[in-house]
Amino acid sequence: MKQNTLTKLLGTDYPIIQAGMVWVSGGKLAGAASKAGCLGVIGAGSMKPELLRHHIQKAKAISDKALAVNLPIMYPGCPEQIEVALDEGIRIFITSAGSPKKYTQYLKDKGCVVIHVTSTPELAKKCEDAGVDAIIAEGFEAGGHNGRDEITTLALIPQVVDAVKIPVIAAGGIADGRSIVAALALGAQGVQMGTRFLMTQESSAHNNFKNLLLKSTPGSTKLSMKNLVPVRLFKNKFFEQVQEIELKGGDKDELSTLLGKGRAKAGMLDGDLDEGELEVGQVCSLIHDLPTVEQLVQALVAQVANVKNNLL
Amino acid sequence: MKQNTLTKLLGTDYPIIQAGMVWVSGGKLAGAASKAGCLGVIGAGSMKPELLRHHIQKAKAISDKALAVNLPIMYPGCPEQIEVALDEGIRIFITSAGSPKKYTQYLKDKGCVVIHVTSTPELAKKCEDAGVDAIIAEGFEAGGHNGRDEITTLALIPQVVDAVKIPVIAAGGIADGRSIVAALALGAQGVQMGTRFLMTQESSAHNNFKNLLLKSTPGSTKLSMKNLVPVRLFKNKFFEQVQEIELKGGDKDELSTLLGKGRAKAGMLDGDLDEGELEVGQVCSLIHDLPTVEQLVQALVAQVANVKNNLL
Repeated sequence: MKQNTLTKLLGTDYPIIQAGMVWVSGGKLAGAASKAGCLGVIGAGSMKPELLRHHIQKAKAISDKALAVNLPIMYPGCPEQIEVALDEGIRIFITSAGSPKKYTQYLKDKGCVVIHVTSTPELAKKCEDAGVDAIIAEGFEAGGHNGRDEITTLALIPQVVDAVKIPVIAAGGIADGRSIVAALALGAQGVQMGTRFLMTQESSAHNNFKNLLLKSTPGSTKLSMKNLVPVRLFKNKFFEQVQEIELKGGDKDELSTLLGKGRAKAGMLDGDLDEGELEVGQVCSLIHDLPTVEQLVQALVAQVANVKNNLL
Repeated sequence: MKQNTLTKLLGTDYPIIQAGMVWVSGGKLAGAASKAGCLGVIGAGSMKPELLRHHIQKAKAISDKALAVNLPIMYPGCPEQIEVALDEGIRIFITSAGSPKKYTQYLKDKGCVVIHVTSTPELAKKCEDAGVDAIIAEGFEAGGHNGRDEITTLALIPQVVDAVKIPVIAAGGIADGRSIVAALALGAQGVQMGTRFLMTQESSAHNNFKNLLLKSTPGSTKLSMKNLVPVRLFKNKFFEQVQEIELKGGDKDELSTLLGKGRAKAGMLDGDLDEGELEVGQVCSLIHDLPTVEQLVQALVAQVANVKNNLL
């Protein structure tokens, strides 16, 4: 894979970002992805400052290469997380779930690269106006939280590329060399992969969850909880309870009560496949192995070369 | 665009299929697409036999090149449509909305090429087992009728390519040279484009509808009527009525009563933008012109060459 504006911006060997994923991408996965030539990303989620510091240090002990922190900026602890990350030397920030205006200028003044996650061309333009360096445009097929307009990656990326001048990173539906080349053909400068990195040895997803995904089918996930915050879930028992409420026209309060607290941790980290919330992308059924991150990245590089060769 | 197994099977210059679209792709559009080097397709829908004959003859008067008929096989008049098409010399059939076992052997015995439309890898495998020559795999972003599993084109195509040995044609979300190259990178041998051909001079969509689409935004369409038959609609007044029923958990009967008869014709052919049913793909907002089919195809060919060149 050749160097481009994005790899130069991030200082990576490859235009591949390992997605920040709550309960899944701590220091171990981020360090491994960084060491393998990608951008390693710690999914800070609702980590307390000292836990975030621990994960950053863990990643830095594995790799001295490109490392970032993903921050959902609506989280009240976000300002403290930013200070810890800056203190630990993080200079690439991926912000999501909030206004790109909130922290971009502050981080730029500290010499950081700022990338914001969006799901529409309109918001991508607002991010560019707010001064971010690049956009992650995430389609309907992505795991976890998702946009309300249900725009797929294939429809989204060309429209975001046409709307902004800064580099665009495609997310959602990217699992192998074929989809990486597809994203580049659409005009993206790189890709963010979540589910593919979840299904590696180094991710902290529970083995129960990883093994469940190895047996998944193309229809195993669904975008759910649309009356609360749309999120793509694996269809387990908890999903069925959500579905039941939604089919009878249930509201936000009913969904909130069912969701309660700790569902995502129970499912993804602790491996409770029935009662836990399992966030994962639609491509899970395209993935048939659980390699190390190094094995994965080498395979992706070889696949990309092969796909490009076949296109000519 | 280079020749491949699919172009040789279809006898076309390019691996591009103009989608059969009810009320939109009669003889005029199919003839123009065929003449321009693509597979022209008459959307037979519920056409009476003599109307289908008229449209085939119209297309044949425009082009003596590759021409097909798209048949939703659950339509009771389908056997008569097949006889008329065979009588008029049609030797490429695209079948959809029913079992691939129903007519494939009969058509193969008459020396025809048979292509079946699917939305899952599992059904694609069944189509191959039934003896079809190629698969159209259609993703969630496609206009009109759609699968229940909501698998996007980006997630679907590699899985269908891995499931079968026959050529796979990608449909849904394909609107320009970028998405054509993306589809080829995913392993498809070609593409089917609906909305892009709807938005040409030769399609029989009403000008009101075409002009509405020129002003669309990425969130202008939504997959609706999931309790009846999932269909991607433009968000107009009729859509809002559907939405209202669905949000309060309304059932199949309520949706059927609202839909009534003739909604699609009223919207797409007669241009009633409020009360009509407007079926269209998510990529409508990526399209900013209404060229002739010849202009469109020449532009696509140039874009594909350019995108491939940039990938290297």
